[in-house]
Amino acid sequence: MTRVKLLGMNKATTAASTGRGPADHDVRDQIVTAATDHFRLYGYEKTTVSDLAKAIGFSKAYIYKFFESKQAIGELICANCLQQIEADVKAAIDGTDRPPEKLRRMFKAVVESSLRLFFDNRKLYDIAASAAGEHWEAVRVFEERIQAMLQDILRQGRESEEFERKTPLDETAAAIQLVMRPYLNPLLLQYNFDYAEHAPAQLSSLVLRSLSP
Amino acid sequence: MTRVKLLGMNKATTAASTGRGPADHDVRDQIVTAATDHFRLYGYEKTTVSDLAKAIGFSKAYIYKFFESKQAIGELICANCLQQIEADVKAAIDGTDRPPEKLRRMFKAVVESSLRLFFDNRKLYDIAASAAGEHWEAVRVFEERIQAMLQDILRQGRESEEFERKTPLDETAAAIQLVMRPYLNPLLLQYNFDYAEHAPAQLSSLVLRSLSP
Repeated sequence: MTRVKLLGMNKATTAASTGRGPADHDVRDQIVTAATDHFRLYGYEKTTVSDLAKAIGFSKAYIYKFFESKQAIGELICANCLQQIEADVKAAIDGTDRPPEKLRRMFKAVVESSLRLFFDNRKLYDIAASAAGEHWEAVRVFEERIQAMLQDILRQGRESEEFERKTPLDETAAAIQLVMRPYLNPLLLQYNFDYAEHAPAQLSSLVLRSLSP
Repeated sequence: MTRVKLLGMNKATTAASTGRGPADHDVRDQIVTAATDHFRLYGYEKTTVSDLAKAIGFSKAYIYKFFESKQAIGELICANCLQQIEADVKAAIDGTDRPPEKLRRMFKAVVESSLRLFFDNRKLYDIAASAAGEHWEAVRVFEERIQAMLQDILRQGRESEEFERKTPLDETAAAIQLVMRPYLNPLLLQYNFDYAEHAPAQLSSLVLRSLSP
């Protein structure tokens, strides 16, 4: 309870200077950070909001003021993980100007970044797996962003005449995302470890052959 | 015990006329058939050899004379399931002479036949999933046969000059099998139902573009 009171005080102080929003935002961040640590140790599936409240030192009711359910907290943690993968993939793509090389690096980064998340933090990865299994919003957003990055590369490659233009862009992008999916989706990735080393190169070569004008 | 004795008599009779092998083979078949029925009802993972012995009316020791473990029985059942998929795929391929169409049909048949097994008999499918997770011999053999069928189609397409010949055949075939794998492997297929309707057409189109000379 002490921490709740402290937070209440912080909130009041911040609210006086910057309004209610940012203070709420701070508390939300604090809950997410604490929940991340807790899930990291005990796993997402096995933890209830009561466990979480006890561990963080908040009342359950106080947590429910900020999040409507455990899944809402999980969604935010999951979104953070997926944003990290997205950032890694974006950095890899931005490292070169050539569309074919961008595509190669995209395949490689998707696998490497997902595996890093898996091995660095198995318990957080399990949240992502729950998310993928239950079609959480965060996963849908992530898949859309990956699709947008893919379409960008394809558009650039078509402009530079390195990629064929006969097939509708949407069709090409959707098919490539299907090829990438077993390494992008946490539920599938766990069964693909044996292939993770060579698959990115093999698959991006196949995809690049399919794109040749 | 009655059935064990009956079987013992059968065995003796057959052994007299055709030697020991075929009689053993009959008993093995009988165990596999009974085990298939039992697994179909109660699932593979939850059934022990003792359960099986009780259900079939054999002694546990008698079953162990023919199979060294539950997995050995499961392997045979799994091999039968995979042989069915293999036969379906082969029939689909043989239905046309044109290599590109063979490849399209192969993708379609892999997904349809696997889904049929899954939906017709979820419990037997679970055996295949165990098999895939534990790298059983039956799965390895199945994957090799699918790879051989794939290489055959590629070879024919290269001969008819419908497929490119620059990329080493092994490399092309391995990459295509990677693309097919999420629909071929029972562990992965269960997470791909949402994609099963359109994926075969989308993926085979992409693969055919990658094969164009």
